[in-house]
Amino acid sequence: MLRVAIAGASGYTGLELLRILCAHPSAMVCLITSRQQKGQRIDDFYPAFKRRCDLVFEDTDPERLASSSDLVFTALPHLASMDVIADLLQRGARVVDLSADYRLKDPEVFRQWYSPHKTPQLLNEAVYGLPELYREKIRSARLVANPGCYPTSVILAVAPVLSRALIDPETIIADSKSGVSGAGRGMELGLHFCEVNEGFRAYKVAEHRHTPEIEQELSVLAARPVKVNFTPHLVPMSRGILSTVYCSLKPGVGAKEVDEAFESWYADELFVRLGGPGRLPATLQVRGSNYCDLGWRVDERTRRLIVISVIDNLTRGASGQAVCNMNIMNGLPENAGLQDLPWQP
Amino acid sequence: MLRVAIAGASGYTGLELLRILCAHPSAMVCLITSRQQKGQRIDDFYPAFKRRCDLVFEDTDPERLASSSDLVFTALPHLASMDVIADLLQRGARVVDLSADYRLKDPEVFRQWYSPHKTPQLLNEAVYGLPELYREKIRSARLVANPGCYPTSVILAVAPVLSRALIDPETIIADSKSGVSGAGRGMELGLHFCEVNEGFRAYKVAEHRHTPEIEQELSVLAARPVKVNFTPHLVPMSRGILSTVYCSLKPGVGAKEVDEAFESWYADELFVRLGGPGRLPATLQVRGSNYCDLGWRVDERTRRLIVISVIDNLTRGASGQAVCNMNIMNGLPENAGLQDLPWQP
Amino acid sequence: MLRVAIAGASGYTGLELLRILCAHPSAMVCLITSRQQKGQRIDDFYPAFKRRCDLVFEDTDPERLASSSDLVFTALPHLASMDVIADLLQRGARVVDLSADYRLKDPEVFRQWYSPHKTPQLLNEAVYGLPELYREKIRSARLVANPGCYPTSVILAVAPVLSRALIDPETIIADSKSGVSGAGRGMELGLHFCEVNEGFRAYKVAEHRHTPEIEQELSVLAARPVKVNFTPHLVPMSRGILSTVYCSLKPGVGAKEVDEAFESWYADELFVRLGGPGRLPATLQVRGSNYCDLGWRVDERTRRLIVISVIDNLTRGASGQAVCNMNIMNGLPENAGLQDLPWQP
Amino acid sequence: MLRVAIAGASGYTGLELLRILCAHPSAMVCLITSRQQKGQRIDDFYPAFKRRCDLVFEDTDPERLASSSDLVFTALPHLASMDVIADLLQRGARVVDLSADYRLKDPEVFRQWYSPHKTPQLLNEAVYGLPELYREKIRSARLVANPGCYPTSVILAVAPVLSRALIDPETIIADSKSGVSGAGRGMELGLHFCEVNEGFRAYKVAEHRHTPEIEQELSVLAARPVKVNFTPHLVPMSRGILSTVYCSLKPGVGAKEVDEAFESWYADELFVRLGGPGRLPATLQVRGSNYCDLGWRVDERTRRLIVISVIDNLTRGASGQAVCNMNIMNGLPENAGLQDLPWQP
Repeated sequence: MLRVAIAGASGYTGLELLRILCAHPSAMVCLITSRQQKGQRIDDFYPAFKRRCDLVFEDTDPERLASSSDLVFTALPHLASMDVIADLLQRGARVVDLSADYRLKDPEVFRQWYSPHKTPQLLNEAVYGLPELYREKIRSARLVANPGCYPTSVILAVAPVLSRALIDPETIIADSKSGVSGAGRGMELGLHFCEVNEGFRAYKVAEHRHTPEIEQELSVLAARPVKVNFTPHLVPMSRGILSTVYCSLKPGVGAKEVDEAFESWYADELFVRLGGPGRLPATLQVRGSNYCDLGWRVDERTRRLIVISVIDNLTRGASGQAVCNMNIMNGLPENAGLQDLPWQP
Repeated sequence: MLRVAIAGASGYTGLELLRILCAHPSAMVCLITSRQQKGQRIDDFYPAFKRRCDLVFEDTDPERLASSSDLVFTALPHLASMDVIADLLQRGARVVDLSADYRLKDPEVFRQWYSPHKTPQLLNEAVYGLPELYREKIRSARLVANPGCYPTSVILAVAPVLSRALIDPETIIADSKSGVSGAGRGMELGLHFCEVNEGFRAYKVAEHRHTPEIEQELSVLAARPVKVNFTPHLVPMSRGILSTVYCSLKPGVGAKEVDEAFESWYADELFVRLGGPGRLPATLQVRGSNYCDLGWRVDERTRRLIVISVIDNLTRGASGQAVCNMNIMNGLPENAGLQDLPWQP
Repeated sequence: MLRVAIAGASGYTGLELLRILCAHPSAMVCLITSRQQKGQRIDDFYPAFKRRCDLVFEDTDPERLASSSDLVFTALPHLASMDVIADLLQRGARVVDLSADYRLKDPEVFRQWYSPHKTPQLLNEAVYGLPELYREKIRSARLVANPGCYPTSVILAVAPVLSRALIDPETIIADSKSGVSGAGRGMELGLHFCEVNEGFRAYKVAEHRHTPEIEQELSVLAARPVKVNFTPHLVPMSRGILSTVYCSLKPGVGAKEVDEAFESWYADELFVRLGGPGRLPATLQVRGSNYCDLGWRVDERTRRLIVISVIDNLTRGASGQAVCNMNIMNGLPENAGLQDLPWQP
Repeated sequence: MLRVAIAGASGYTGLELLRILCAHPSAMVCLITSRQQKGQRIDDFYPAFKRRCDLVFEDTDPERLASSSDLVFTALPHLASMDVIADLLQRGARVVDLSADYRLKDPEVFRQWYSPHKTPQLLNEAVYGLPELYREKIRSARLVANPGCYPTSVILAVAPVLSRALIDPETIIADSKSGVSGAGRGMELGLHFCEVNEGFRAYKVAEHRHTPEIEQELSVLAARPVKVNFTPHLVPMSRGILSTVYCSLKPGVGAKEVDEAFESWYADELFVRLGGPGRLPATLQVRGSNYCDLGWRVDERTRRLIVISVIDNLTRGASGQAVCNMNIMNGLPENAGLQDLPWQP
């Protein structure tokens, strides 16, 4: 039985980790921490866990985390993760970090979009935890940087056609829509029920911090620098991301090449499902699961490819993917603990 | 491996059965039927099932159902179930019926609230499938009448205090609120998104067919005839029932006796969770699970007891309870296949 | 043109007042105050007002409020209102208070449910602003205590049958369900979108502060002390209250007497609409309007009357009713500025 | 008093017309028709209208429509409108058509996207009813083709920069998101509450019929043929459209030129409101109103302009705009009957 700890377990990604891990066949949560909820029992704080977990939130102490577990999930706010991770690694823990702190390779890019990095030497060691791209490296990684929710949906949408050079990499536009849990459990007026309900809005247009993360990975796939427009929007629902990705096809490329690229690229992937012809995916069909479902359309009138990508932002976009990374790091089946069917309706 | 079939698998309770059973450790769905969807693959009809189930809807034929399975779930509309169940039983199948057709014991009461019964001789044999009340009978039953969603929430709310005679049985009022999936997947204007969204309404006040079902079971518990007021309401959400049940305490009864009744009555029950003092349950904390969570308050000013009961109408209120009954009928652990944590958020 | 001011204009009731008054034919908002938003332009704070109002929030100063307006709406938190109202009255302003501070007549009851009252001498002078009950007194009032949202829905539901003594006043149970705007615009975890969405819950069972307000007015109508059970619930929608009120009919009273009581009691009321036989009201049909729609059912099986009452909690339950009171106090038509049709869908 | 009729008044656009017109100072609805609801009183069918309208649905008879009114709104399904409009015009009625039947100028394009047109000779006479573009022609038009909801939001978003040639017309991508009322009140499984709620989906990607309508008007503005990608999505809310429009800036064009284009183009428009720097609009701030609110961002990294445009799909996107057209056709103030403030929250 793998012993794991969750640092920062009182937010939505921490709670989702706990939900998944409480039913995992080969892992056991030994420790949960939360500065704010220190001393409170989880099932008192969150009655859904009654009878299923009776852990008490402790303070976030690297020594305690490392000594009580084989692997630590850090679900702390951005910039807070880096305060504990170097310490955890030194103490021999393996870490899956759900923050953005170790996703970017270039400390200068990190500085531009976030702030100066405190442990830039670890950026290179950290493995970007998208199993479809980095499965082999994840296996032996000490530190996995779990991808952002939006980047997961966008990168998986264009990886096959970008890596096969079927599209012009300068034309990529990702228009993404997310449920509200992606904004976290913090209290802001903008997340008050009445301010979200019955409304739809864009936010951080042309300045969202997931942009450089998307660009980094698309640049690797294209083998050249790629810049994208990424626009996030808030949907009045709790879970789910749908990304609509636009790009121009290279001359001579048609629907057949595109279909073939998706089908061969994802042929052996457990957690990517492709829509048949004419079937575009909806967020509801993956809710609560680790699936990324993809559909696409070639518009011959404009010579553009439109890819629709859906995930559950908390599962595939965060905690489900983190558990998948844990599985890979420990030689477990990739889908261990991740076999629940999507939540319908 | 238990072989099961689902007759009427294209509605919400049928799909919920399939969702649960696809992940059940000891049962396997061999056959799904639907008159309307005959010939269609389930994952084409409902893409959430992609990679998880590739059954094709067949016509609802008792012979085929009985021969291909050990147990049949009938999730057919009321009055349609009774057309096939006698046939299924004769052919040796055991049946869990999710319709209302075999819940009432008295054919005359059935006639008043529904219509004349076609197989009244089976009413007495059928076991009312509320495990907390009829576990022993369910074990050996050929035909289990799975309780209605509202009755499940109401009966569990008052069973302890009614059976202990702490309340006046003539004063019971059940004010219930349900998510929309309880109304089924049929197309009516009243279920159009814009007609439900941002609104709240009562329906079938003083005439809902779950009334006699509630009264039947409360009368058993009280050992005398009980009449109740039951008022259902529609909440703009997909899943969940909350019932607020009011009743007058008998003279001399106080909070202590009430607490004690709930705690001892449910002490060994896996699927009933009690709120501590001051903790009232909310529907979200049981969503997607088979739990019924209960909380209560004694109002000394009015000498009334108010019990709050929450369930997921599709899981505990229908398909989860049906699977629980299947488990009991087959000597499996009661919670086999029912161990997912509630869906949060 | 009547000059009015709104003290505490940045909460939902304040904003709703402003929305209504910006389109009022005979009143003009001259001053809005908010301690928190002081110095900010309303249309910057709340872009819906762009082009329609360019007032700047000022500090809540009684002298400035009284001197710049003929009538002041105080939409301040409970207990904060009483700090300014005596001052406002002394300076000659007339006041419609949307807080609970002057709704209760008995300072001892106020103390039990809130805290000691600072200006108990005004409790008697204040007129409870439910036009259907106190229209004449409102006309000449200096201080109108605008009713709570829940009490408005409950009192109007039982006034006809209680005042005609058709029901037993000891049996009244009000089960109420409210949209989230009723909880105000404050930031609490419980109002975060994901904590409310897809869930339903009861709160403050047997201890909500609207209880004594309901009891006070029902006692006047019954001409004897009345105690009720009142249970509020939170519905995942922005606006609307539905109250389901249960009471036992006196011997010999039937549907005919009940129908007649409702019809004659509300015959001349502009803002109460009665459903015909078999038509129960839903919250959506009054959303955004000042209507209270009523429907009822007599259950001969249990000899109980069930009344369904719907209002928009922000309009009829707060700001619309406040404007109606302003109209009455100033000899304007009761429906001036309140003629928008309900918002559909 | 202008006498108007509504043909097809039982759908959402018909009901929205009625809601607006019932409070219009200079128009009076004399006749409403609906084949399906023939003989039913409007307030029986839709209780929100109680006390405000007691018209009875009649059959859709051109003679009766023309004789009883000065202007007819046709809110019939696409292809059904053209059956009655020629007849109405011949009988002397002026018509505002809310269907798509007369929006396209080229009968061949109509044929490609819809079907052969029955009265192609009227296509040229019909005026495209977007007041900001065709105000003068609308004044004297016999037949106004009221724009589609999506096209309204997209055309207003790019008109200033396209007509000033600040952007490359070949690069326009419109990613639009709509509330559910835009799909009409028809009963389809896809509009069932539980199929829409908590989900987000794209539909008719690269094949939605609003594409040629958008292209027609953008081509006029660009003075050359324009092709666009237009992708509609369904948001789990009742009202509102947000369009995110992407286009590449021409060399040398910067934020200053863009700002200036929007500000001067819309300087005198009553119903277009511009966000200041850093303020992007949300659908909630225009709900229930005829406003189109616009915001934009220049991304120097990619040299693209992103425009965010929000409208209420039923008001500005259909019935409010239709009433605005009626006002213009009859010399009334453009905002007569359209002065309600947006519905908040």
